[in-house]
Amino acid sequence: MLKMHDIITKKQQGRELNEEEIAFFVKGVTDGNIPDYQISALLMAIWFKGMTDEEAICLAEYMADSGETAELLSVKGKKVDKHSTGGVGDKVSLIVGPMVAAVNKGVYVPKMAGRGLGFTGGTLDKLEACAGVNTEISAEKFEEIVREIGFCIAGQSKRLAPADGVMTALRDVTCTDNCIPLIAASVMSKKLASGNECIVLDIKCGSGSFCKTLRDAEELARLMVRIGARAKKKTVALITDMSAPLGRAVGNSVELIEAIRVLEGKGDEELTEICVTVAAHMLYVANVADYETCVALAEETLYDGSALKKLADLVERLGGDKRYIYDTSLFEESNVTAMLVADRSGYITQIDAMGVGKAAAILGAGRDKLGGSIDHSAGIILNKRIGDRIEEGEALATLQAKDLDRAQAGMEYLFKAVTIGDSQPEKTNIIMKCIF
Amino acid sequence: MLKMHDIITKKQQGRELNEEEIAFFVKGVTDGNIPDYQISALLMAIWFKGMTDEEAICLAEYMADSGETAELLSVKGKKVDKHSTGGVGDKVSLIVGPMVAAVNKGVYVPKMAGRGLGFTGGTLDKLEACAGVNTEISAEKFEEIVREIGFCIAGQSKRLAPADGVMTALRDVTCTDNCIPLIAASVMSKKLASGNECIVLDIKCGSGSFCKTLRDAEELARLMVRIGARAKKKTVALITDMSAPLGRAVGNSVELIEAIRVLEGKGDEELTEICVTVAAHMLYVANVADYETCVALAEETLYDGSALKKLADLVERLGGDKRYIYDTSLFEESNVTAMLVADRSGYITQIDAMGVGKAAAILGAGRDKLGGSIDHSAGIILNKRIGDRIEEGEALATLQAKDLDRAQAGMEYLFKAVTIGDSQPEKTNIIMKCIF
Repeated sequence: MLKMHDIITKKQQGRELNEEEIAFFVKGVTDGNIPDYQISALLMAIWFKGMTDEEAICLAEYMADSGETAELLSVKGKKVDKHSTGGVGDKVSLIVGPMVAAVNKGVYVPKMAGRGLGFTGGTLDKLEACAGVNTEISAEKFEEIVREIGFCIAGQSKRLAPADGVMTALRDVTCTDNCIPLIAASVMSKKLASGNECIVLDIKCGSGSFCKTLRDAEELARLMVRIGARAKKKTVALITDMSAPLGRAVGNSVELIEAIRVLEGKGDEELTEICVTVAAHMLYVANVADYETCVALAEETLYDGSALKKLADLVERLGGDKRYIYDTSLFEESNVTAMLVADRSGYITQIDAMGVGKAAAILGAGRDKLGGSIDHSAGIILNKRIGDRIEEGEALATLQAKDLDRAQAGMEYLFKAVTIGDSQPEKTNIIMKCIF
Repeated sequence: MLKMHDIITKKQQGRELNEEEIAFFVKGVTDGNIPDYQISALLMAIWFKGMTDEEAICLAEYMADSGETAELLSVKGKKVDKHSTGGVGDKVSLIVGPMVAAVNKGVYVPKMAGRGLGFTGGTLDKLEACAGVNTEISAEKFEEIVREIGFCIAGQSKRLAPADGVMTALRDVTCTDNCIPLIAASVMSKKLASGNECIVLDIKCGSGSFCKTLRDAEELARLMVRIGARAKKKTVALITDMSAPLGRAVGNSVELIEAIRVLEGKGDEELTEICVTVAAHMLYVANVADYETCVALAEETLYDGSALKKLADLVERLGGDKRYIYDTSLFEESNVTAMLVADRSGYITQIDAMGVGKAAAILGAGRDKLGGSIDHSAGIILNKRIGDRIEEGEALATLQAKDLDRAQAGMEYLFKAVTIGDSQPEKTNIIMKCIF
């Protein structure tokens, strides 16, 4: 009979766990028969000793099978999932879902998303910045919205991959969240448990994400693509830059408003580029057309108003007021608006994503514990991007908060996150790599 | 404010925890504010990354201060503690306590001991093999016995070093028990919390103990001596061989009977040697005399009946029947007695301590979980020692158990633990090293 003690010892010695051992572990995690302290001991041993691809694939598959699966059988068409490993200012899901649905070529986007914790924001929180929106809907309602408007963004069902729920919560409090095989197995277990045929992964790379180096990002991407392929899901991973925040807005309502700007065809150039690339890949993996045609189809939805309309449709279906989508002046304003001005002239050489994320969290846009409340109107709008020229005294960013104390604290973090230098840095490509 | 998250991360990176962090951790373990899963995550990180001497010393001191301290103020004399890191057939505590008390030179031995778990026996269980003995006594009773007869062996008070109780239980179930700085801090925390001026450590080395190599044993010994010295306790560590079981008996009543034989001056030569050495060091660190005189004083107690009388006194004080000490035929007999005979002629080249320990546990002499029951009469008596000549069909060992199934299962383990070869192995010294 298998014992946790032997499994932990085996991993301490750096040996590969076999399928039977991984199955035993996932079952014990799911039914609660393995106590937390033994789960976290094994997680820490994995953090130190890693996992082989075979172990990570096996772990992902057993976690995927640990609960229900969402088949979405009534949705007749190719279902494509999009997942980002999470970064600061990442509102891509809010944009590409409407885009792909607007292309209207039989590709559906059932997107289960999460809430923000710490310095990274959550797609659900951003969407709920629009008055009336409630993303906690039933599985039936979710399926109905996908079927009728072509996409939906809603809360993750707790019945999908419950073993992952337990492990993710424990990883968070035991400092074992930054472990490539565990991240890969966690993300992919939820993807495998949902009924999508294709998966587009946006692996963030840089100071504002788990993967600080391109090498780590490539390893994570490669492993996730292997897990997807093994489960017969067409999977592609883009590696995108997260050394600076994505776009210009960091927060909840400010990010939703920025997403609306992109959907109006008036968004930040770099953010628009990444959204078109992700959306085009989603269409491409679903065999809609060759890649260049997919790019053209995706771009078009930003300029004919069709993608914006899809977002408005979703807001309406989720009980929200869709006028906000067409008139962003309706969004609740924050009590305090503060301006960070440059203390010298020069070029913006660095905007540290993690620093900006922490500043936004302190302003009130983040949660410090699960289930905590957030301030939808709090956030940061950057007036300048890396490479821009700035003069002493010129406004670098606008900060929004509920009160002056928070504004002041956020200001201090933001000030430290931005570096102004003498020479203009070289422009880097936001899309670093694509791994099939 | 300190956070467990940061402390775990620091140790994952292999950095040294400072006093404030260790104090925070021990306090949180003691008052229950740090959840088990975070304690075990840190323990596993320490297992991988180790601790500096400074960290281990600091951990031991804060653990020692986590509860009450036993000062034994009414005992007017030098108090010497003796501790073994645990091995198979280790009944030394049952012998050296009476010996030092019998020397009667103002040296007291207040010995708090533990129970057996897994394949290592517990001193308390062995003592309780004598009818009527109860080692769960009050602190007052313990002090009284020490004061009046010169020594006592009883259960560890849970009020001493309670942080160690929590950590030891968690280490056991998270495979982090075999970690030198954690062993050192755990053992020494209890030693520091008791009111002894001197400590003699018996560090076991070999297959039947935590320290498989002399190098590990030396490291553990050196660290424990440093912890003791820092707390102004005169500490000495002996490193003794535990590749084969100590003495000839492994079990509970069989070990108590073997201890009685040594105290009668009729014991196994090697076991007697180690007991004289340990007892002499206990007298020596308490400044009774020069080392050679201490050896002579200790030896004498085995031949004038004085040490045996001290054991009888203790048995009586603990509610037991002291006639057992003078007539070992009174000990309860087991239902089944089986004989393991040699399947070939030759020399005994190996008796694997861990294998013998597991065989004894299966016979019924061990516990498989905390609080489980044990069979005092179950055990093994080895007729042969390493280096002895044996002929095919000759009795190698006697096994005692409650029923035939257990006897059979124990026999199989014991058979595998003993190796017979063609040439006589060289005699090795049981006392490998002494570290001051």
